[in-house]
Amino acid sequence: MRVLIFILANILLTSGNLDKVQHERDKLFNEELQMMIGSDIELSDSEIKANEVIMDLKNEELEHGFLHPGNFNVSKHFFEYKESVKKTKLYQLIKNMPKGAVLHAHDTAVLGPDYILSLTYWKDLFVCFDGDDINLLFSRNVPNTTCGTEWQLMRDARFSSGNVEKFDADLKQHFSLVIDNPEEVYTDINTVWSIFQSLFGVIGPVVTYKPVWEQYFYDTLKALREDGVMYFEVRSVLPQLYDLDGVTYDSVATAESYKKVVDQFMVDYPDFFGAKLIYAPLRLVEKKTVKEYLEIAREIKRRMPGFLAGFDLVGQEDLGRPLKSFMSELVEASKEFDLFLHAGETNWSGLSSDENLYDAIALGTKRIGHGYSIIKHPVLMREIKKKDIALEVNVVSNSVLKLVSDVRNHPLAAMLALDLPVVLSSDDPGLWEAEPLSHDFYVAFVGVASKHADLRVLKKLALNSLYYSTYPNKDKLVHDFQIRWTKFIDSVVRDKW
Amino acid sequence: MRVLIFILANILLTSGNLDKVQHERDKLFNEELQMMIGSDIELSDSEIKANEVIMDLKNEELEHGFLHPGNFNVSKHFFEYKESVKKTKLYQLIKNMPKGAVLHAHDTAVLGPDYILSLTYWKDLFVCFDGDDINLLFSRNVPNTTCGTEWQLMRDARFSSGNVEKFDADLKQHFSLVIDNPEEVYTDINTVWSIFQSLFGVIGPVVTYKPVWEQYFYDTLKALREDGVMYFEVRSVLPQLYDLDGVTYDSVATAESYKKVVDQFMVDYPDFFGAKLIYAPLRLVEKKTVKEYLEIAREIKRRMPGFLAGFDLVGQEDLGRPLKSFMSELVEASKEFDLFLHAGETNWSGLSSDENLYDAIALGTKRIGHGYSIIKHPVLMREIKKKDIALEVNVVSNSVLKLVSDVRNHPLAAMLALDLPVVLSSDDPGLWEAEPLSHDFYVAFVGVASKHADLRVLKKLALNSLYYSTYPNKDKLVHDFQIRWTKFIDSVVRDKW
Repeated sequence: MRVLIFILANILLTSGNLDKVQHERDKLFNEELQMMIGSDIELSDSEIKANEVIMDLKNEELEHGFLHPGNFNVSKHFFEYKESVKKTKLYQLIKNMPKGAVLHAHDTAVLGPDYILSLTYWKDLFVCFDGDDINLLFSRNVPNTTCGTEWQLMRDARFSSGNVEKFDADLKQHFSLVIDNPEEVYTDINTVWSIFQSLFGVIGPVVTYKPVWEQYFYDTLKALREDGVMYFEVRSVLPQLYDLDGVTYDSVATAESYKKVVDQFMVDYPDFFGAKLIYAPLRLVEKKTVKEYLEIAREIKRRMPGFLAGFDLVGQEDLGRPLKSFMSELVEASKEFDLFLHAGETNWSGLSSDENLYDAIALGTKRIGHGYSIIKHPVLMREIKKKDIALEVNVVSNSVLKLVSDVRNHPLAAMLALDLPVVLSSDDPGLWEAEPLSHDFYVAFVGVASKHADLRVLKKLALNSLYYSTYPNKDKLVHDFQIRWTKFIDSVVRDKW
Repeated sequence: MRVLIFILANILLTSGNLDKVQHERDKLFNEELQMMIGSDIELSDSEIKANEVIMDLKNEELEHGFLHPGNFNVSKHFFEYKESVKKTKLYQLIKNMPKGAVLHAHDTAVLGPDYILSLTYWKDLFVCFDGDDINLLFSRNVPNTTCGTEWQLMRDARFSSGNVEKFDADLKQHFSLVIDNPEEVYTDINTVWSIFQSLFGVIGPVVTYKPVWEQYFYDTLKALREDGVMYFEVRSVLPQLYDLDGVTYDSVATAESYKKVVDQFMVDYPDFFGAKLIYAPLRLVEKKTVKEYLEIAREIKRRMPGFLAGFDLVGQEDLGRPLKSFMSELVEASKEFDLFLHAGETNWSGLSSDENLYDAIALGTKRIGHGYSIIKHPVLMREIKKKDIALEVNVVSNSVLKLVSDVRNHPLAAMLALDLPVVLSSDDPGLWEAEPLSHDFYVAFVGVASKHADLRVLKKLALNSLYYSTYPNKDKLVHDFQIRWTKFIDSVVRDKW
C-alpha cells in the first residue's frame, strides 16, 4: 500500500510538473504572439474565414519548405523565384489585396525593363553602340555629342539588325539587373551597386526626355494602382529634363512635371489618392551642394506647397557621405521640411552608414529609409517606437542588393516580433523585375515573418503605410481602404480561392 | 540693424539647434555603448594600452573592408579565409589570448582531418573502398562484415596505392567538410547536414576504437589548452566503443573512458581545469529511447557524480523531433539533471525547431545550445536575461552549416548590443578545419560585433564562459584566468605586436 501511494504520488508530482512546464511554455508563447505586429487588430467573422484560407496556403508552403529547404523558393536568390511564385494562389491573393501606400520607391525604378524597352519604340530616339555600352538620346536631329561609334535612329538600328527579337532582348538587358548567374557576377555589395547605378546611367537619357518622364510617371501610378496601391510618396533626385531641341529644364520644373501628371491621373482615376514628392538628391556631394539642394526644395515648397512631402539624400550609404558630414545643413533643413532620411541600409555594425541611424533620429526624421541595421541598436529601437518613427523596409531590394542572401535572416522578422513601426516598400522594383509592391508583401509574409503571422499582420502593414504617410486627410484614406479591404475579404471568402 | 539682428539671431538659433541635435545624437550613441556586453568592465592602464593595439588592428581591417567589401575576409565563405586570417596579427593576438572555457563542442569533432589521417597510420586498421565511399575498422583479423569490395589492411592499401601523398589526400577528404566549391555543393541546409553527418559515419569506426577514443580525447584537451582554453564541457553521444576483438563497451563505459582521460590529463597538465560531460544523444528517436537515455545518464551520475554536467539532445533540429514531443521525459530529466538543451539552431521562424526555445526555457535549461533564432523572440530574450540562461553561440558553425552566409547578419551582433548572456563556442571545429576556439573569437570580434566592441567585449566573453560553466570552484577558475589574462596583456603591451 505504501509503495502504491508512493508511486501514485510520484505520478501526480510528475504530471503536476509537466502541467506547470507546459503552462509556462504556453504563457511565453502567447505573450509573444500578443506582442507581434498586428495583434491589436480584431478580425471580423469574414476576416476569420479569409484568414483560414490564407493561412492554409501559407502553412502548406512553409511545411513543404521545412522538409525540403532546397525547394523553399524565397530562401533562394530573388531572380530564381520571382516568376514562379506569381503562379501560386497565395501570391495572387496578395496581389489582389489592398496594400495601402508605397512610401519608399525611387522615380525611374518602378517600371520594369519591358516598359523601358517599349519606350525605345518612341520616335526621335537615337542610339550609339559603344562596345558593350549603349548610349540613348532623344533628339530632333542627329545628336552632336561624341560617342564611341556613331549615332543612328533607334528605328534604323533596330530594323537593320535583321533580328528584331534578338535586338530587343539584348537592348532589354541594359535596363535590368536580372541575369542568370547573379551569385557569380554580383560578387559583393559594391559590384552590384555599381552595376545598379550604371543602369540609371543608361536609362536616364531615355526617361529624362520630358514627354517620356511624364508618361513614365503616369504609367507608374497606373501600375501601382493595379497592384493594390492607393497612394504614393515618390523619392526623386529631380533630374534635369530635356526636349527634342536640347532645351533643358531644372529640378523645380521636374517637380512641376510630376505634379501635373498626378493631377491628370487623379482626374482619370479618381479612386487613386495621389502622390507626393520626397526630394531625395544624391548624398555623395559637397556641403555646398546640399545647400543648393535646400534652395531647390524651398522653391518647390513655395510653388507647390502641398506636393512636397519632405527631404532625403540617396545613394549607396556605405560609400556616400554620412549624415553627420551635413549636420548643420540638415538641422537647417529640419526646420523647414519633414525629413525622411535613408539610414542604416548596411550590414556593417558601428561604421558610418550604420551610425547614420543616430543622426537621422536626432534630426527628427519622420521615417527611416531602410533602417536595416537598427536591429543591432536597442536604444534606437526604443526611440523609434517612442517617437513613432516608421522604418521603410524593402526586403527584396535588400536581398538583390546583397545585404542578406536568405531572407529568413532579414531583420524584419525581429522588427515584426517587436512590433516596431514598420511599412513595407519596394525601393526599385523595376530594376529587378518585381511587381510594384506584391513581391515585397509576399516575401515578407512567407519568407520573413513568423509562421504565426497571419492576416492581421498583412492588414496592419497596409494600414501602417497609410498611417505613416503624409497624406493630409488620413481618415478618408483609411475609410476608403476599409471599403476596399472588406470587398477583398468577401472575395476571398466567396471564391474560397 | 534690424536685419543684422535677425541674421545674428538666426545664426545663434541654428547653432543652438545644431548643438541640441548633436547632443541628442551623442546621448543615444553613448547610452548604447554603455549597454553593450562588457561595458561593466573597467580596463586597467595596461589593458587600455593593449586595447589600443588591438583596436588599431581591428579598425584597419574594418576600414579596408568598408571601402573594399569584396576583400573583407569574414564576409566570405569560411573555407576561403580560414587559413589566410591566421597570418594576421590580430588573429595571432586572439590566439594567444586566454579565452576561458569551451562549453559547446561535440566529442569527435574538435580535431581536424589531418589528425584523423594520422590515426589511419595506427596498426590494425582495415579499410574497404566502395565506390566513392570508404569503410574503416580496427580489428585483430580481417573483419567479417560484408562491404562493397574487400577489407584490406590500411597499411597495405596505402603502400600498394603507389602514391602515398595522393592516397592520403584522397583519404583526408573523407574526414572534412572543406571543399573548393562549397556554395555549389552545399546547396541547402539539409544537403550540408547530410554530408556533415555522413562524416561522423566515416570517422566513427576510427574514433570509437577504444584506444583511439581515449587518445583522441587526450589530444583534444591538449589542442584546447594550446588554443588558450582552460576548461571544457564536452557534449557526447557516448557511442559504443570497441576493441580489436570486437568486444563492445556501452555508453557508461565510454563516459568512464572520458573520465579516465581527463584525470590523466590533469596529472600531466595541472594548469588545465579539466572537463565535464554533457550527455547529448541523438534527438531523432522514439520517446522510449529518451527514457533509455535517462537511465544511462542516471548510471553515469551514480558512478561519476562530479563528472556529469547534464543532459541534452543533438542532431539537425529542423529534421529532428522537437523538444515538446519528449516533454514528460524532459520534465522528469529536469528534476535529476541540469539541462543544456539545443534550441533555435534554425533560421525558420515559428516552426518547431524555432519553438524549441519556448520548451527549453520552460524546462529550466541552464544554457541554450545556439539559440540562433532567439533574436525573433523578444519575450524569450527578456526571460534568458532575467533567468541568466546563457546562449552558446557558434558563429563559424552557423555559417558553414548554412544558417547565414555573411556573418555580419549573424544575430550575435544584436545579442552583444543587448548584453544578452552569451558564450562563444565552436561546435565542431575539426570538421571545417577551424582551430578549437580562436577562429570563432576572431570572426565574432571582427565580423560580427560592432566596430566599437573592444577588449572589454573579448574579456567579457571569456569571463562569461567561466561564469556560465558548471565548474565547481569558480573563484579559483576566475582567479587563475585573471593571472593568465594579465600576462597576456603585458605581452601585448611589451611586444607592441
